[in-house]
Formats: sequence, structure tokens, C-alpha cells
Amino acid sequence: MVKKIMNEPQNIVDEMLEGFVFAHEEIEWFPNYRVVALKEKKKGKVGIMSVGGSGHEPAHAGYVGKGMLDAAVAGNLFASPSPDQMLKAMEEINTGAGVLVVLKNYSGDLMNYSVAKELAQMKGIEVECVVVKDDVAVPDSTYSTGRRGIAGTIFVHKIAGAKANEGASLQEVKEAAEIANANIRSIGMSMTACTLPGLDKPGFTVADDEIEIGMGIHGEPGIQKTKIKKASELAEIMLAKIIEDYDYSESEIALMINGLGATPLMELYVFAGCIQKLLKAKRISAHKVLVGNYMTSLDMAGCSITMFKLDKQTKRLLDAPCNTPGLKF
Amino acid sequence: MVKKIMNEPQNIVDEMLEGFVFAHEEIEWFPNYRVVALKEKKKGKVGIMSVGGSGHEPAHAGYVGKGMLDAAVAGNLFASPSPDQMLKAMEEINTGAGVLVVLKNYSGDLMNYSVAKELAQMKGIEVECVVVKDDVAVPDSTYSTGRRGIAGTIFVHKIAGAKANEGASLQEVKEAAEIANANIRSIGMSMTACTLPGLDKPGFTVADDEIEIGMGIHGEPGIQKTKIKKASELAEIMLAKIIEDYDYSESEIALMINGLGATPLMELYVFAGCIQKLLKAKRISAHKVLVGNYMTSLDMAGCSITMFKLDKQTKRLLDAPCNTPGLKF
Repeated sequence: MVKKIMNEPQNIVDEMLEGFVFAHEEIEWFPNYRVVALKEKKKGKVGIMSVGGSGHEPAHAGYVGKGMLDAAVAGNLFASPSPDQMLKAMEEINTGAGVLVVLKNYSGDLMNYSVAKELAQMKGIEVECVVVKDDVAVPDSTYSTGRRGIAGTIFVHKIAGAKANEGASLQEVKEAAEIANANIRSIGMSMTACTLPGLDKPGFTVADDEIEIGMGIHGEPGIQKTKIKKASELAEIMLAKIIEDYDYSESEIALMINGLGATPLMELYVFAGCIQKLLKAKRISAHKVLVGNYMTSLDMAGCSITMFKLDKQTKRLLDAPCNTPGLKF
Repeated sequence: MVKKIMNEPQNIVDEMLEGFVFAHEEIEWFPNYRVVALKEKKKGKVGIMSVGGSGHEPAHAGYVGKGMLDAAVAGNLFASPSPDQMLKAMEEINTGAGVLVVLKNYSGDLMNYSVAKELAQMKGIEVECVVVKDDVAVPDSTYSTGRRGIAGTIFVHKIAGAKANEGASLQEVKEAAEIANANIRSIGMSMTACTLPGLDKPGFTVADDEIEIGMGIHGEPGIQKTKIKKASELAEIMLAKIIEDYDYSESEIALMINGLGATPLMELYVFAGCIQKLLKAKRISAHKVLVGNYMTSLDMAGCSITMFKLDKQTKRLLDAPCNTPGLKF
């Protein structure tokens, strides 16, 4: 048995949400729907929400707050929430200006979203979405046609939330989110597998002296398994994969070094230092650097890098204040 | 070999600090001294600093920022920084009003501090300290005579930082910190041991189906090893230990559910929910609830609970804005 702080494994998502709203009194929840929402509504503001499986905390509930999400919808562990759940959130946060849903590119999420969108439209709620596909590791994956969405999602939340806060229309918010989306790339690396609560062992393994580059946030296969490497070598390999796909040379970026759940902050900072040296060499300037656990995979050890090329608008939106459990500026 | 994101193990502290100042441009560092300090100095404000071994990130550097610490001094892994290092920080942050040093009750830290204090006084810097001893688990421990200082330290940083920000004198800041100190109790629980970078295995073990209640943040022995328990039972045992020592009934508290480094946020929220139910039963009201990794032990899995009884002053100081990498209100 992999040891976890929990009661019955089947209740872990609900109990997590219960603890979450206890800790964050500005957020309310609708237990039957596993929806959490910011209590304060801003009339006429486009509602922003994120949906996705649980096990990625602080994503997604942790980004509910001023300047980011108005609601988050939690699925079961690593599984999409249902259309009904999504609809409930849409109804809660629509104040007349419509709702933008931030999706990660997983088939279950997309399918359920498309049903929820139809249901919402029948109720007169205008709904749009943006689908994050930032993971450059593999073209298709276990649960996705096309690239997977991973930690870059947090930047999309931020940009959409800030744009909506400025009073933009649904189309304008969607457009800003799409611009962010198009300029974000990520790649991950795992040192260990992760174990679903209640199971005896992970559903896959990473050998004791190996790591896997490009593994997904549900343990989906990556690019290669390789012997454990120094942080500086890893940084080089991972950055090269990103830059091969999108040329960040000479640009100004936001950078995220994201821990996957079981990796100490000390190691993430070491890794950030390695990345810094490589960015310098490529004359890439980091306007903002986030180091921490932002999009995790249960108890997986490892990290991901996300790069986000900024322009004048995205820089302003990124820098706008936000106040959420998972991110505060 | 326990896999870690690092280069040479002997450089991990310096490389961490390098990554840290890269990510947080409002903070400068003095590499030869492993001192990090807030660039902006407020003339005439009492300087607040924290010292301690590395491996507890975000402690201590992560609490440098407006409203909390002016500097932090990093020792080697789990080892006190030297008097010279501490002196450097004292010199950097003294703007004429003196310096308060937040210590945790470990013999090495206390000894080196007493030398640093003398050196500072010879240079005309007034220095005082507060020694945090919040861990109710054991009366004495491997590295401490008297109780160990653990996660409650973060609250002491906060209170001292806020009081100094109000323009209080060194004696007044010390007094406020001591009041906080006297009203804070913590206890921890480990599910796994932790491994020093570069070593093959931890220096101690926690059996596969066991946990240890009251284990220290360097792996010092706790109260008891026991079979793994449900979160709700654990919450009951740990809370009882705290309340046996200090009666929080019917009071208003700040609560911290602290992860030890490798425990996913999901589990910490589940635990917070369990604690909430017990607090309700004792009519203890939680004014502020912090859930996250605040005082870690490398890659140890487990958590600690900290309770802090608030009065009018400590509540005001706790609620004052702060902006640090590890804590923002």
C-alpha cells in the first residue's frame, strides 16, 4: 500500500474540496456537483472556468479567485467531470456576459464540454472554450488526439482572467486566451510514477536509476526513458525540445518551473538556476519566473518547464494582480 | 541512489539560492555568505531575519519579502549557518533600529547565534532573538535541549515582520514575537524518511506500513511509530497531543496544515477537512487557515499541524499584508 493521508479512497475528491473551502472562505462549493466558485460575482464580467480531473492540485480549484477563475469543476482522479457538473458551473458564473471554459486537450474533457455547451446554450448562456495543448513531448497520447495540455494551462487561466477583469467581451477574452495559448510550450520529466489513492502500486513504473522525459501528467508515455542525469543536462535536453518547436530566441518570456507533487522546492530552484544559464545564452529574457507546484500528478516526482512568449498585451495581463490559493501577485 | 534534480550534491544549497534569486528579483544575495536579503531597505525599521539549515524550503529564504523577513541565512543541509554568515545578514539589514533574529530551538543555531550577536554588538548593532519551540512531541531531542522549533516559526516570522513594519522598536517587536511564540503549538507526522542529496538512502527508516507521530523536521525520533491510520484518526491523535499541552478551546486561532515536502496538496486538504470537524466540536474558530508546504524536510512525506491562538494584536499583525515567495496575503 502506498501511504497517503486520506480516509476512504473513494471519498478523497469530496474530502479534499471540503478542506479546500474550509481553508479559503472567499470560495463556495456545490458539493453535489464538485464545483467551487468565487462567492463574489462581478455583474457583466465574462465568467472564466477550468475543468479537469482531480489529482493535479492546486489545479484546478486553486486558481479560483480574483483575477483568474470564477469557478473550477473537479472530476474524479484523472477523469473528466461530467457535462452536468460543467453546466452547473456555467450557470453559477454567468452574469450575462457569457462563459469561457479553459480545457486541456484530453478527449474526455472535450467530449463532456461539448455536451455541456449545448445544454448551456439551451438555457441562453453563451459559452466558448480554449483548448490548451502546450506539451511538445508527443504528437498524440493515451487520452488525447493532438498534444496534451499541461502546466501552461495556468498561464492561460491568468490571461483569460485578467482580460475578463478588464471588462472585455467573451470574444475578446477568448482571443486573448488563444494568443497566450499559441505562445506557450511545455515539457515534463518524471523521476517516479504516481499511485492512485487506494491502489497498492502505480499503474506504470520508472526504473530506480531512470527518468522519463516527456511523460504526461497522468503517466502517459513520453519521448524517452533514460538514465538519471544531472540537472544541467536535463535542462538542456528539455529546453532544446521546446525550442525545436517554437523559437523563443531574443524574446521576453514568462517561465514556469513546475513540480509534479513530490519534488522538493529546493530541487525546483536548482533546476530554475540551470534554465537561467541556458536562457542567457539564447538571449531570452525572463520577465516573470514561477517556481513551485502548479500542475501536479498526485505523488509523482519530477518537474515541467513552461515558456510563454509575451507581447505587450499578454505582459500587461500576466502582471495584473490576482489573488487565488495557488497564485497571487 | 535516491533520484533528485541536482548537479553535484555538495553544490545544492548554492545552486538553489542562485535559482531562488533568479526567480525573485526583489531579493538579492551574497553568495559567499549564503545570505539573501530584500533589496529595498526601510530606514529606521527593525530588521527581521531567520537563520537555519537548508532542506526546509521555502523556509527560510522564501519568507524574505515585504511584511516578513528582511534577510535569511542558509546553512548546509540540516546544519546551522556560521556566526560569520549571520553577522553578514545583521550588517545588511540593520538600518539603525537593530535586528531581531528568529531562531528555531536547535543547539547549533543557538550557539552560532550567540557568537554572531557578540560580533554584531562590537560593531554597534543591537541584536535580539526569539527562539521558537513549538513542537509538543518530545521534551528534548537529538539536536535540541527543550522542544524543537518547527512550522510555527512561519507565524513568528509573520508577526515580527508586521510589527516591525508598523515602526515598532526592537523591544516591542521582540515582545510581539514572544507573545506569538507563547501561543503557538505544533506536531508533525511522517510517512517516509528523507534522504540527504548524494546519499543512497535515508539515515533512518519508517516501515512500509507504518508512520511516525511527532517526528522532527530532520528525522529526529517522535512519540510513537504506529500502523498507518485514516486521516481522521490521525487528526484526532495529533490534535489531542496539542490540546493536552495548550488549551485552545473556545478561542480564535490561525491554523497551518504544513506538508513536509513530498506530500501532495490533495492530501493536505483532506487533512484540513478532518481538523475542521474536530475544531468545530471544541468550538475553536479558525480565523485563517494555511494549507501547503511551508516548513519541509527534503523529500519527506507527511505533515504537521500548527495552532496559534490569536489576540487582538496578533490577529491584526497576522492579517497585515505580506509579499514573500512563500507566503502572500
